[in-house]
Amino acid sequence: MDSQLSPPGSPKNVVAMTPHQTELRVQTRGRGFHEITREVATWVRGTGIETGLCTLFLRHTSASLVIQENADPDVRRDFDTYFADLVPDGWRRFIHTAEGDDDMPAHIMSAMMGVHLSIPIRDGELALGTWQGIYVWEHRKTPHARQVVVHGAGI
Amino acid sequence: MDSQLSPPGSPKNVVAMTPHQTELRVQTRGRGFHEITREVATWVRGTGIETGLCTLFLRHTSASLVIQENADPDVRRDFDTYFADLVPDGWRRFIHTAEGDDDMPAHIMSAMMGVHLSIPIRDGELALGTWQGIYVWEHRKTPHARQVVVHGAGI
Amino acid sequence: MDSQLSPPGSPKNVVAMTPHQTELRVQTRGRGFHEITREVATWVRGTGIETGLCTLFLRHTSASLVIQENADPDVRRDFDTYFADLVPDGWRRFIHTAEGDDDMPAHIMSAMMGVHLSIPIRDGELALGTWQGIYVWEHRKTPHARQVVVHGAGI
Repeated sequence: MDSQLSPPGSPKNVVAMTPHQTELRVQTRGRGFHEITREVATWVRGTGIETGLCTLFLRHTSASLVIQENADPDVRRDFDTYFADLVPDGWRRFIHTAEGDDDMPAHIMSAMMGVHLSIPIRDGELALGTWQGIYVWEHRKTPHARQVVVHGAGI
Repeated sequence: MDSQLSPPGSPKNVVAMTPHQTELRVQTRGRGFHEITREVATWVRGTGIETGLCTLFLRHTSASLVIQENADPDVRRDFDTYFADLVPDGWRRFIHTAEGDDDMPAHIMSAMMGVHLSIPIRDGELALGTWQGIYVWEHRKTPHARQVVVHGAGI
Repeated sequence: MDSQLSPPGSPKNVVAMTPHQTELRVQTRGRGFHEITREVATWVRGTGIETGLCTLFLRHTSASLVIQENADPDVRRDFDTYFADLVPDGWRRFIHTAEGDDDMPAHIMSAMMGVHLSIPIRDGELALGTWQGIYVWEHRKTPHARQVVVHGAGI
């Protein structure tokens, strides 16, 4: 493991350590993946952070934030097929059913996949792998307005 | 996406960037959800951080940290029902059984749900959504003493 | 919850807040757990950070970063058995099959378990629990070269 220690801080660096924050609003079209990689990457560039950390936080309990393959759309279709089978809508043993037969599956998938991501910033860019995209994964069947708080800190 | 860049750092801000850390001890009552939202929110206010990031880390491999709906308790009951079915205690193919028939399911759920959370701090408060609560999810059947390291950084 | 607020920043502390970053390259031997705790712990000590946060990010979509029990190897064998059953290779309903019958299961497990970890640094060490190890969990059947970006910030 090659350690690339950052150069000693200077007054200029210290000032730039001030955190940056914004909110991204995402209108989903119902169950499925909504890519936000470009929006987040553009915002990170605008902060001027060269070395740092970008954290995304989704303010909901029935959708997720995930990193997944951004190449073959069949991958995301298989995700939908697999999870519809693993966490079936309207499972007979669910008792929280008042908000729809897709609500408990959405809560469960939100807990499984999670609602936050932390991605290092390196050389002024998100250090994503070649095939990694950032997605809001909507678990409800109907369109929803989703909020993602984006936080960046670094120098 | 509206970018709300923080104001340029001042000497005062730089001093406040010092990280804050504490440990929260949670006594669980066996399998189920133990809410810690209030304790974490109170601690964050005490740090005086206006814009920053709060990270929680659970120091165990048989419980999880999750964000879930804090309104209808039936949601959490359905979580218990669903996961008891998905990761059954005493599954015949488990070989690590010396610590109890609920130990391997607990390890698996801990890996699935995860043991860390990162939540932005905005305007001096955790940027949680309206229905989001922070929970230690105990996966063992018996009560346990759990430790959560809480880290805050910002200005 | 005892709050252990850090001492007010001094010019020396402020300089040390500069973030540190490196990349860890991990050669996996096919499906299974590859422990990296020692490498990460050594790097953290080298940064000189006393109080801070270490974030790990895996740049791939068919492996995961997890924290799991580092004691009984049977635990990790049971993980393999359980997930081979939960997300079976070559499931008949997968359509993304061109990259092998283990590729979609790998993507699904990567999304479930996640590709990032954030661990507080306390008294100059990772604040891991006694039984917690950090693992790259390879989900593909063949060996792969995996990259983990390691980010540290603190004082």
